[in-house]
Amino acid sequence: MNSDIIESLIKSMQQLPGIGNKSAKRLALHILKNKNTLLSSLLNNLTLALEKIKQCKICFNISEHDPCHICCDNQRETNKICIVKDVADLWVLENSKTYNGLYHVLGGNLSALDNKKPEDLNIEELLQRVTKNINEIIIATDATIAGQTTAYYIADLFKSYNIKISRLAFGIPVGGELDYLDEGTLRIAIEQRNIFQ
Amino acid sequence: MNSDIIESLIKSMQQLPGIGNKSAKRLALHILKNKNTLLSSLLNNLTLALEKIKQCKICFNISEHDPCHICCDNQRETNKICIVKDVADLWVLENSKTYNGLYHVLGGNLSALDNKKPEDLNIEELLQRVTKNINEIIIATDATIAGQTTAYYIADLFKSYNIKISRLAFGIPVGGELDYLDEGTLRIAIEQRNIFQ
Repeated sequence: MNSDIIESLIKSMQQLPGIGNKSAKRLALHILKNKNTLLSSLLNNLTLALEKIKQCKICFNISEHDPCHICCDNQRETNKICIVKDVADLWVLENSKTYNGLYHVLGGNLSALDNKKPEDLNIEELLQRVTKNINEIIIATDATIAGQTTAYYIADLFKSYNIKISRLAFGIPVGGELDYLDEGTLRIAIEQRNIFQ
Repeated sequence: MNSDIIESLIKSMQQLPGIGNKSAKRLALHILKNKNTLLSSLLNNLTLALEKIKQCKICFNISEHDPCHICCDNQRETNKICIVKDVADLWVLENSKTYNGLYHVLGGNLSALDNKKPEDLNIEELLQRVTKNINEIIIATDATIAGQTTAYYIADLFKSYNIKISRLAFGIPVGGELDYLDEGTLRIAIEQRNIFQ
């Protein structure tokens, strides 16, 4: 019923994560209504992204440089590698401003269900990175079954290495109320309780 | 912390309706991860939209033609005009496939709060369209206060014309359960009850 161009635009929008049929129409219409402001700048930013953004060959972060700005930054602690599933996880950790080492993006979790095997992740590249200069590996995979499986697999790989292998703490999220917590979190929060200081 | 290009892309995404900070990051990352498939086709469709999509000078619909495909379609009943607030409303009505006349997009509702006066809407153009050929005006504005105000204003404008002025029926939405309905809808559904056939 609509113009082909508008239909194609709506279809493009539907391919974005979390955008259904109705939202896609709403987005397309909003973009078309703001042709001279929003649409032009969106086009410009997408074109730049297509042309300039690349994956870092060392840590698999994405940025306009390869190696990325984190791998090139000599202010960082280059003897620590934090292992994350995804670039989104790297962004969250960077935003928290609590970690100043290097990263390694796996590109997914090990998962029998999704048929993700070690060779599908950037694990070979991780093994090559972990040389004598590295003294700690921080495993920051998800607290899901797949994330935990991946964490154990990686911890096992580096068992024979003479380096510290750590992982993020489990427990009650800050601001969390006890009666909204699931039993698993509560159990681990009790088991791993700390001395009150 | 991030590359400027990625930050600009995230900012562009945040300007879309209903997209907050987290969703914008998620969208940007998804687009960057699917550079060769999604990003290229999105760029292509946005470029086409920017270049080709225009507003119809007759009914203010948007499409690649001016006048639009609805105004040019001689299979339609050209003696009926359905008045809608927005192109999105026109799309919904077209999708329902129950109306085969022409449209007129107002571009908003009259609203004292938002300082929308009759001269801000496409009402002057509507007056010019309603000539002897038109025998029915269907007012399909929202069932909100602003939508109702707009409906009364338009009905009043055409009072002296010798044409049928109708509006969409109020009542229980199909599939709606009575105990979830608001009192206003229920009252109007009782008042405007139909003979059971």
